[in-house]
Amino acid sequence: MSKRVDIAIIGSGVAGISAALNAKIRKKSFLLFGSEELSNKIVKASQINNYLGLPAVSGTDMIQHMKDHMKSMEVEVTEDKITTIYNMGEYYSLMSKDNFYEATAVILATGVNFGKPLKGEEEFLGSGVGYCATCDAPLYRDKVVTIIAYNKHEENEANFMASVASKVYYVPMYKEEVEVEEGIEVVRDTPVEIVGDDVVKKLICKEREIETDGVFLLRDSTPPAQLVPGLKLDGNHVEVDRLMKTNLPGCFAAGDIVGIPYQYIKAAGEGNIAALSAVAYIDNKKKEEK
Amino acid sequence: MSKRVDIAIIGSGVAGISAALNAKIRKKSFLLFGSEELSNKIVKASQINNYLGLPAVSGTDMIQHMKDHMKSMEVEVTEDKITTIYNMGEYYSLMSKDNFYEATAVILATGVNFGKPLKGEEEFLGSGVGYCATCDAPLYRDKVVTIIAYNKHEENEANFMASVASKVYYVPMYKEEVEVEEGIEVVRDTPVEIVGDDVVKKLICKEREIETDGVFLLRDSTPPAQLVPGLKLDGNHVEVDRLMKTNLPGCFAAGDIVGIPYQYIKAAGEGNIAALSAVAYIDNKKKEEK
Repeated sequence: MSKRVDIAIIGSGVAGISAALNAKIRKKSFLLFGSEELSNKIVKASQINNYLGLPAVSGTDMIQHMKDHMKSMEVEVTEDKITTIYNMGEYYSLMSKDNFYEATAVILATGVNFGKPLKGEEEFLGSGVGYCATCDAPLYRDKVVTIIAYNKHEENEANFMASVASKVYYVPMYKEEVEVEEGIEVVRDTPVEIVGDDVVKKLICKEREIETDGVFLLRDSTPPAQLVPGLKLDGNHVEVDRLMKTNLPGCFAAGDIVGIPYQYIKAAGEGNIAALSAVAYIDNKKKEEK
Repeated sequence: MSKRVDIAIIGSGVAGISAALNAKIRKKSFLLFGSEELSNKIVKASQINNYLGLPAVSGTDMIQHMKDHMKSMEVEVTEDKITTIYNMGEYYSLMSKDNFYEATAVILATGVNFGKPLKGEEEFLGSGVGYCATCDAPLYRDKVVTIIAYNKHEENEANFMASVASKVYYVPMYKEEVEVEEGIEVVRDTPVEIVGDDVVKKLICKEREIETDGVFLLRDSTPPAQLVPGLKLDGNHVEVDRLMKTNLPGCFAAGDIVGIPYQYIKAAGEGNIAALSAVAYIDNKKKEEK
């Protein structure tokens, strides 16, 4: 188990990086979970005109500005994908596929690229629908599993599942060539609905239907309510107040995940607020403990 | 009378400039009221470390980045100090000493440098206490007036008042030499309390008391409740929701004026949100009118 940090920041987009700078300035220990590349979404931005101080900046230049700022302040990214965060009362317990971490406060800054839920997804969540194939693999020994994957690196999850399940269907939602182990059936089709009775029975796609005991949806980011059980939402977004507090004490959120407008400068401002709120929360907690 | 604009932005700090960039991008007509120097407060900042994208930027460099961004997008400042903004239902009417303007929506971004009110100030507001000496001068013909001034350029106000009132006391709250017309009595002292019965009778300072019929407090920015009658406050700040809406339809606020944390990147983010909310308000209004 790793040492408990003051703040765990989930997401390396503008909101997450902005939060990390402030955690650093306020001398809090923190982990910034995300990717060394920071954000695919920003890279793709052709030109950003309203980030005050950086006129007409391209997405790739914006990433470079962020990296330069991080380097100058010795802020680093931990490349690990957090799949679940549990509120333990006094602290939060964070899980990835291979590790777990502890933090006194958490800042959610994972963006909104989790898309709309599939029809039936929410209904069957925990009854055949899941978001981490390797975590739940033991439940599917000798059963039929379907994996809907939004990123090529999920092929490893399919391979692992194939070593346990009797049959694995793999539905890639990306365009790259699929390279999975023999025996895994690749289905190039568009998922439409998950159906069943008490538990999942079938995945209906546009062209065909797949009889299956389980459906895993492996998106780039986990929907917030699955990421943090008990988190209060407002529609698709995390509900926060003006200090970026969620309904869970010590859990804050910033950026696209908390709602429109989806703008970089807004995300940067919110990351700042969330970090300072987390700092105040931690300081107050330490005072109470004395 | 000037042509009605879509958006009037009050204040040329980070929040106001950020709002103006967005008004420009969204092709709304707007007026940005403030100073060509943008902000005295930013100039004085020694180093800003948490404005993501501009590592370790000095206050003067920050101002230069802002000016460059404004220039590249042809955003200009109107150098006029708005003293009162009236909600006219369909639009807002804005007054300065010499001009008035109309706007469909207003964004308040004047910061918090209005300080704490003087004891008695709120009690006697409109009964001898005022914020615009020249506006109210006719009421003080042959009376005694005291002007508490936070900026050297207010000396003109004192000179004008001296041409009407029987006696003018001038209490400078700045360090520069005072150059006012003969006959104006300069009082280097610290105001403590305004007292009276139905109307103002006296200004009590640390060292002496001044018998007076009126007290004008000429601060760099007007307290928000005086600036916009009917505006709902939360303590010293303007109450807003997460979309930067105040209690008055079409009136938005951003930056330090809406509360802590007092941070540049937070102000920039809020200016962005306020502008996009104002744009949505205007577009919606135009749709309804059709």
